[in-house]
Amino acid sequence: MVIMGIDPGIALSGYGILFSEGANIKVVDFGVIKTESHLSTAERLKSIYDGYLNLMETYNPEAVAIEELFFNKNAKTAITVGQARGVAMLAAASKNIKVYEYTPLEVKQAIVGYGRAKKFQVQEMVRVLLRLNEIPKPDDAADALAVALCHVNLIKFTHHIQNKYLDFPRG
Amino acid sequence: MVIMGIDPGIALSGYGILFSEGANIKVVDFGVIKTESHLSTAERLKSIYDGYLNLMETYNPEAVAIEELFFNKNAKTAITVGQARGVAMLAAASKNIKVYEYTPLEVKQAIVGYGRAKKFQVQEMVRVLLRLNEIPKPDDAADALAVALCHVNLIKFTHHIQNKYLDFPRG
Repeated sequence: MVIMGIDPGIALSGYGILFSEGANIKVVDFGVIKTESHLSTAERLKSIYDGYLNLMETYNPEAVAIEELFFNKNAKTAITVGQARGVAMLAAASKNIKVYEYTPLEVKQAIVGYGRAKKFQVQEMVRVLLRLNEIPKPDDAADALAVALCHVNLIKFTHHIQNKYLDFPRG
Repeated sequence: MVIMGIDPGIALSGYGILFSEGANIKVVDFGVIKTESHLSTAERLKSIYDGYLNLMETYNPEAVAIEELFFNKNAKTAITVGQARGVAMLAAASKNIKVYEYTPLEVKQAIVGYGRAKKFQVQEMVRVLLRLNEIPKPDDAADALAVALCHVNLIKFTHHIQNKYLDFPRG
């Protein structure tokens, strides 16, 4: 099963591709789509959309995982991030790939086992769980890998529960 | 010159198409793209994107006008609107149509001549200026016509100024 985690933003849009089979989870690729600040917003959104589409065509993921965002204050940032997020989700929809959203709490709990974990704790656990030598850079790529890993772990857990209950005789 | 005004939102995305030639401004079409609430966010964004693309293919606008948004509080709404806005701007970019953004102040000043005008004053002026019998419904369509009209008026004004200065002998 190939899973793509995404962390979209107008300047840097992170992605992380995982391959998971049973207990085995492998990093296939990670990185960022960069857009030039001299371009118009519409042109930058097109670069992000085309970038994610290309990655989806290359790796053919079964699911896309994305973190739900919460902003306390800066609503201008929320609009800007929302725009990038919209075109990233559209790329998945246009390829008929299902999008799963996870709250920051769910991501932290799935990876560190603790909902109030700090950013560097999440990143360090991502490094350990994916057997990488270093914490993935930049942050946008690390965050994309984290949400992909959250999805893999939660899906696995759900299957486990389902299988467990299926073992019981019905009636 | 065909201008398309847009007012994107996740449930209702407004559009207004104007044809302008000299002092003559005509309404070509207006309305909303609706998305069903039982669909996933990604599917709704795809409907909005496809809806705007279809309209752009039908009317072949020279420019797209959109209002810049400011949110004081609800950042969750800002993300949701931002996502719809992102796919609408992407539709324009994918058709190589330039997107012009106007602040609410610019729209009010261009249409009512007063930056603190109320919503119904803007809508009534849109009705009068476009010689419609009734205020366009729903609000999303009226707002899309307003920003399109703002663009037509500001572009005309800019041409007027340029032509005026061109009449003066240089040097």
